[in-house]
Amino acid sequence: MSDQKIKVVVVGASGYTGQELLRLLIMHPLVDLVAVTSRTEKDRLLTDVFPRFAGAPSVKDLRFSDPDVDALAATGAEFAFLALPHGVASEFAVPLLEKGFRIVDLSADFRLNCPDIYEEFYGSPHPAPDLLKDAVYGLVETYREEVAGAKLVASPGCYPTSILTPLIPLVKNGFIKPESINVASLSGTSGAGKKAAVPFLFVEVNESLRAYGAPKHRHLSEIEQELSIAAGSEVKISFVPHLMPVNAGIATTIFAELTGVPATIQSCLEAAYADCPFVRILGEGTFADTKNVVRTNFVDIGWVIDERTNRLIISSAEDNLGKGAGSQAIQCFNVMHQFPETTGLLNF
Amino acid sequence: MSDQKIKVVVVGASGYTGQELLRLLIMHPLVDLVAVTSRTEKDRLLTDVFPRFAGAPSVKDLRFSDPDVDALAATGAEFAFLALPHGVASEFAVPLLEKGFRIVDLSADFRLNCPDIYEEFYGSPHPAPDLLKDAVYGLVETYREEVAGAKLVASPGCYPTSILTPLIPLVKNGFIKPESINVASLSGTSGAGKKAAVPFLFVEVNESLRAYGAPKHRHLSEIEQELSIAAGSEVKISFVPHLMPVNAGIATTIFAELTGVPATIQSCLEAAYADCPFVRILGEGTFADTKNVVRTNFVDIGWVIDERTNRLIISSAEDNLGKGAGSQAIQCFNVMHQFPETTGLLNF
Amino acid sequence: MSDQKIKVVVVGASGYTGQELLRLLIMHPLVDLVAVTSRTEKDRLLTDVFPRFAGAPSVKDLRFSDPDVDALAATGAEFAFLALPHGVASEFAVPLLEKGFRIVDLSADFRLNCPDIYEEFYGSPHPAPDLLKDAVYGLVETYREEVAGAKLVASPGCYPTSILTPLIPLVKNGFIKPESINVASLSGTSGAGKKAAVPFLFVEVNESLRAYGAPKHRHLSEIEQELSIAAGSEVKISFVPHLMPVNAGIATTIFAELTGVPATIQSCLEAAYADCPFVRILGEGTFADTKNVVRTNFVDIGWVIDERTNRLIISSAEDNLGKGAGSQAIQCFNVMHQFPETTGLLNF
Amino acid sequence: MSDQKIKVVVVGASGYTGQELLRLLIMHPLVDLVAVTSRTEKDRLLTDVFPRFAGAPSVKDLRFSDPDVDALAATGAEFAFLALPHGVASEFAVPLLEKGFRIVDLSADFRLNCPDIYEEFYGSPHPAPDLLKDAVYGLVETYREEVAGAKLVASPGCYPTSILTPLIPLVKNGFIKPESINVASLSGTSGAGKKAAVPFLFVEVNESLRAYGAPKHRHLSEIEQELSIAAGSEVKISFVPHLMPVNAGIATTIFAELTGVPATIQSCLEAAYADCPFVRILGEGTFADTKNVVRTNFVDIGWVIDERTNRLIISSAEDNLGKGAGSQAIQCFNVMHQFPETTGLLNF
Repeated sequence: MSDQKIKVVVVGASGYTGQELLRLLIMHPLVDLVAVTSRTEKDRLLTDVFPRFAGAPSVKDLRFSDPDVDALAATGAEFAFLALPHGVASEFAVPLLEKGFRIVDLSADFRLNCPDIYEEFYGSPHPAPDLLKDAVYGLVETYREEVAGAKLVASPGCYPTSILTPLIPLVKNGFIKPESINVASLSGTSGAGKKAAVPFLFVEVNESLRAYGAPKHRHLSEIEQELSIAAGSEVKISFVPHLMPVNAGIATTIFAELTGVPATIQSCLEAAYADCPFVRILGEGTFADTKNVVRTNFVDIGWVIDERTNRLIISSAEDNLGKGAGSQAIQCFNVMHQFPETTGLLNF
Repeated sequence: MSDQKIKVVVVGASGYTGQELLRLLIMHPLVDLVAVTSRTEKDRLLTDVFPRFAGAPSVKDLRFSDPDVDALAATGAEFAFLALPHGVASEFAVPLLEKGFRIVDLSADFRLNCPDIYEEFYGSPHPAPDLLKDAVYGLVETYREEVAGAKLVASPGCYPTSILTPLIPLVKNGFIKPESINVASLSGTSGAGKKAAVPFLFVEVNESLRAYGAPKHRHLSEIEQELSIAAGSEVKISFVPHLMPVNAGIATTIFAELTGVPATIQSCLEAAYADCPFVRILGEGTFADTKNVVRTNFVDIGWVIDERTNRLIISSAEDNLGKGAGSQAIQCFNVMHQFPETTGLLNF
Repeated sequence: MSDQKIKVVVVGASGYTGQELLRLLIMHPLVDLVAVTSRTEKDRLLTDVFPRFAGAPSVKDLRFSDPDVDALAATGAEFAFLALPHGVASEFAVPLLEKGFRIVDLSADFRLNCPDIYEEFYGSPHPAPDLLKDAVYGLVETYREEVAGAKLVASPGCYPTSILTPLIPLVKNGFIKPESINVASLSGTSGAGKKAAVPFLFVEVNESLRAYGAPKHRHLSEIEQELSIAAGSEVKISFVPHLMPVNAGIATTIFAELTGVPATIQSCLEAAYADCPFVRILGEGTFADTKNVVRTNFVDIGWVIDERTNRLIISSAEDNLGKGAGSQAIQCFNVMHQFPETTGLLNF
Repeated sequence: MSDQKIKVVVVGASGYTGQELLRLLIMHPLVDLVAVTSRTEKDRLLTDVFPRFAGAPSVKDLRFSDPDVDALAATGAEFAFLALPHGVASEFAVPLLEKGFRIVDLSADFRLNCPDIYEEFYGSPHPAPDLLKDAVYGLVETYREEVAGAKLVASPGCYPTSILTPLIPLVKNGFIKPESINVASLSGTSGAGKKAAVPFLFVEVNESLRAYGAPKHRHLSEIEQELSIAAGSEVKISFVPHLMPVNAGIATTIFAELTGVPATIQSCLEAAYADCPFVRILGEGTFADTKNVVRTNFVDIGWVIDERTNRLIISSAEDNLGKGAGSQAIQCFNVMHQFPETTGLLNF
């Protein structure tokens, strides 16, 4: 089995997303982690930066290095995860692809099909627009075949994954009115990243709950892109993210009007996700709880019908660092290598 | 000033709402707390049940007593706060009113005008339907005069206060379409009460976020009643409560379509609450944070306009035990006695 | 490899310790989990009681059963984990041993060598004193060989593991005065179990820190037993447990006078744990942090020398449900089967 | 009563200590807050920096100003609270005293009698050694008369208050052996201040418990100074602070050998604190809980006797921002003005 192992590098691995990605790669039976880069942590042992990983034999002597493309290529690696800020990821994706790497990028750089939308939501011109047509949006449940054959996969954003997973089949099948969708999502504080800033100090977040970022959070761009594809026409929704005092997890509540098409939500979702091991349909009358999904790659989906207002109310939960980032990236990696999709990801 | 003091009893004071109410009454300069009742804590010192209050001279020797109406009347008290479960409050309200007490009831028993709605939402016939016509809904900002003259005030529910305060003026003035309203609210865990139950153990709530109670939470009944009065026609909305891992606080996010009436939200809210010291209009582009309102009687209101979808997104915050329960009850008490509305409530 | 798998049952699996044990057994490559018992959850699907485990193929159809010894034997299983309250565990250990099971018991029933000490600390006569001489105290780092050959292993208590691991080598080598030892330990709230009780409600534990159980917490009995063995003479210490507002983790701080024997703490600990993959010696000048060990089987140990008072101050951390319970039990299981000690336990 | 009001300025008011101090000053009936300074928040409204205080009529228009001594004197104020870092406080204390201000300094600058000890623990020469002889250590319970007459009071540190309050009477009366004292203290994260730093991000502190700062935390210097005074001879102790995931509160556990002097701890503590409204003696067999003291000026003290080891184990709790900083400073202020000691401080 060890000659099957894929040599992997992680570029930009010192944040919370990087940490979760590394945690899973260390445990992945078909991964050989050969390099991790970080400008800020350069030359430090991985286990000094992340003491949790001390005791993992495979990374005992691994040190953070500068993100140098030639050096990464010289390791013999053929696969790269990019856990970099948007804008920066492109700088590495272009030369790494040229060196023959296949890539899963966890930033927003390759999620949008249209560079203008990127500029509208991210505030600067897209850094590598030519690559957009080749990049695949890494929602495996929707794009499994495209992901399998891709050289460059854009791992979806954390909020979008929790919103798109329940909505895509329902919109595609015409069970809800796309223009009626309102979404309130709550994210654990790791979603804000590992940067020193007063608003994310313990005392500021603990015993606090606050909305932010509405009405035009960056993730709205990819949510609307994918809903529009599912609907076959342009969709605009309202989306309000909130910061909640937990380390990890996203809870999403969606309001949408039913179209009246006689159908059960249950059968629609079950049909869509019959072969998807990471989507757990909890069923009608249930609500998803973040504590059941943190540190996993699962998305849980529950819902109720509000007959009084003719609305469907959906509740979904995932880990913002897991299915919303690190483990979803590895799910893409597995599919890109025809490994069983759950390889290294059935950690409870 | 001490001959002005009102002799007060609190019936059912051993839960979290009772504790917050007592905390404020102990500090209230015009209150003489003469009796507190609790069946479960009978005969125990108040300061043994609530060690925080040890050191408050005025309650040094106060013990919980059985809730006996004659005994309460014999104290010479003239005012009662009822912090009892719904259904039970009525049992005490009726004889206490007969004894001449004025009452603020913190339960749901007298919030609804229509006993049928009570039965629909609470699952049993209303225990004292004759009293409903005399009871005043204790949202002082809306019913100040009625509260001032009332003998029986029903202190509003925690979720409703956070939802109605921003919505009533906007609905009344026709700025939003009532049928388009969707509400996601999050409550601190004290909202679940002080009862021993596994789902509210620390381990179950900490690092967890979950919706519950939709689509027909009990509080929906009073929310729709008051919105319908404001709109002048029947209003139905969708409402999803959530449990969040903080001790206290409610954060509410409201989605509603704008009608297109050319008006500013700011001026509408400012006009409505010009003389209301406990409503803080944060302004457009802001989001309310529960940490700024816990342990106070304030409701904070922020909002944004989502031009892309023509929706108004409102964010409000209050303390579920404060403006949502205990301090709002005292606000009513102040108004009922023509005391300055903020007496004993400007505690930050 | 699958014909190597050991058929395993878990008796009493519905609490927090049971949940963590099951989590690890589900991921263990050499375990075939054939039965889980719980009186309170009888007949329910494992995945309904613990929704986190939904999606684990191996337990898809597993239901809780009544704890019936004959039925457990009929499964063909040969190994049992007992995650029962003290006193109750013995009732099952005796007949299961007779049926030929090997056992790791996570209760306190078989940790003490002397039934009188059991009675002194646990308040009732020992239920199966004849078994005590055969039971092995499952601190693998100290009793590896005895554990390997045992039929009945008593998995150590959570606090004791965090205290004994750093202290045993230091006491054995005479570097500290045993009678000078003072210990303050803090436990996550899962240590209090999954029972409905007001003191462990979220609101009571959150934003709270309190000592309890001193001066004679039950775990003191096994701590002193093992320290006395290490010292070669009777040792008595002071021990104060505290409840802290986190789900899992134990942080222990130990004060002890140095004897003046010229030696380095570092070399003593390193020598003692050279072949122990789960003991991480952080080194002098460091402090262990619970967040680095939760959900693992590691114990982290740091320390400083207080030259002003001639004391050694040790800081250790572990997961009360992990190295303090579930994963330590599996470590024993691995050793009992000559599996690599880390099998199924290198989950970060 | 308003002509009794004291005009007060707060220098350095933008941190967590400053916020708690301001909260209490706003509610204090005999304080007229005329200026607040902060270099970083200069010109901003107090209520913009601290939105909780919006709605307090008395500070409606108050803005942060630069800390200019002449400008502060020009306000007509006669009293200054200094909530500045150590070293910086002296720079303002000297000229403010010259202008006739009386001062409570919340920094460490004037807590030590000996400049050499200051230099040993704080790492730089004392900035104003001549003032040390005039400064009074503001532990009102021990130095009430000296505080009453002082021009410059050094408000004690947070950890020291929780340690000295129970220990001083016991050491003074010879009931415990001073050289046997070991102390483990835990502080809420506000104790780390409001500075942007990764180790104090929510994700780093939540679900974490860690010791730090031993063996020579700065507060040890004032603890040992005051214990030595109480003992009448030099005392050295071991002290280990810990960071805990709560916003506020200090829990302290003290181990000390009994001398065998026949006496009850209870009567010793009760006698010492008979006239001290803020010291609550919980009694033998009890443990103090931080949740009962946060946002108050109380110190709670419980203890047990460990007969097996002849040790006394004390448990104390206070609010690190309250009795450990802001409210203790106001207690000093009250005593300095012959106001009732509890004025403005009986907030539960």
